[in-house]
Amino acid sequence: MIITISREFSSGGREIGKRLADELGLAYYDGEIITLIAKETGMSEEYIQNISEKGVYPYTYQFAKSFLNSSPVQNSQIQVLVKQNEIIKKIASKGNCVIVGRAANVILKGEDTIDLFIYADMKSKVARCKQKADENENLSEKELEKKIIEVSKNREKFHNVVSNEEWGKKENYDLCINTSGVDIKSIITPLKMYIENWFRRN
Amino acid sequence: MIITISREFSSGGREIGKRLADELGLAYYDGEIITLIAKETGMSEEYIQNISEKGVYPYTYQFAKSFLNSSPVQNSQIQVLVKQNEIIKKIASKGNCVIVGRAANVILKGEDTIDLFIYADMKSKVARCKQKADENENLSEKELEKKIIEVSKNREKFHNVVSNEEWGKKENYDLCINTSGVDIKSIITPLKMYIENWFRRN
Repeated sequence: MIITISREFSSGGREIGKRLADELGLAYYDGEIITLIAKETGMSEEYIQNISEKGVYPYTYQFAKSFLNSSPVQNSQIQVLVKQNEIIKKIASKGNCVIVGRAANVILKGEDTIDLFIYADMKSKVARCKQKADENENLSEKELEKKIIEVSKNREKFHNVVSNEEWGKKENYDLCINTSGVDIKSIITPLKMYIENWFRRN
Repeated sequence: MIITISREFSSGGREIGKRLADELGLAYYDGEIITLIAKETGMSEEYIQNISEKGVYPYTYQFAKSFLNSSPVQNSQIQVLVKQNEIIKKIASKGNCVIVGRAANVILKGEDTIDLFIYADMKSKVARCKQKADENENLSEKELEKKIIEVSKNREKFHNVVSNEEWGKKENYDLCINTSGVDIKSIITPLKMYIENWFRRN
């Protein structure tokens, strides 16, 4: 049972992933992947996080791969991308996990996964962002909106480096969940059942 | 509890709607709306069906409405559109129903509904179309594909007359369900629970 979760920033996707992993007894991967990349490349987590969140990949994955085959990897951005690909495939080969973000749905295309996309309207995303107040404490609503748009745009950009498929296009996912005004806790049990049935029948 | 279901042709949306209505004890409206329009306008069901499925509305709903207010309705296409609007609002005012198609999610915008969109890849849609073999018995796979594309295009066209919102755009729905390779029966119980929780919390 492999669940991939793609999500708009502050739409509750991480909470859904974490709760599903708990309920279904699955391994959970999110920031953990960054830690693994750091371990295997010797780069700092901050640097890797920065590359992923700022969406600065200048090359496509195909290009990166051909580059990797012909000469030692010089470019650390490419190295992160290739390593991430390897790590996600390794994680998936063990099965029974939830992978949040990192374009895992694309990297694992063809595997027996269920791919969720979590989204919400701006009002709900700003409200969720406010609840996680620690780091955003001093941001105004306008600034939060700006941040939300920026992070989502970078995720999209990152996704488009790895894939030819459009980020957030419903056809690329098995289930798209609008969390606007929705209490995440209330949807976990039905989602869990949906996923269990899905893997039983498919 | 009002559930609206929009769906690509042959994606299993009607079956989902019917089963949910049975399980939740809700009234079910699909072709029934055509019958009601026929009764109230005196037009034949075939004619009304034809207008809806062929997507020939030449006017927007806003235009139709202003037209209706200023003079007797001459144009039967407009009459169908306006009547459909009235009927769907009347149905919704009684609550506890499933409405399939007819852009009900748009007509009921602002009401406390849960809006589902059902879709699937072409392979699954052709397979479902084949199962309902009676009327399609003599169609080849290519012809089925053509039919599926045509009907979906007309639904989209019809939707766009009633609404400024894009048909099938996930942001306009609460839950988008990809039925590719999915056994409809297996998703009814979790969906039912999802919807029950949704109305309990919202």
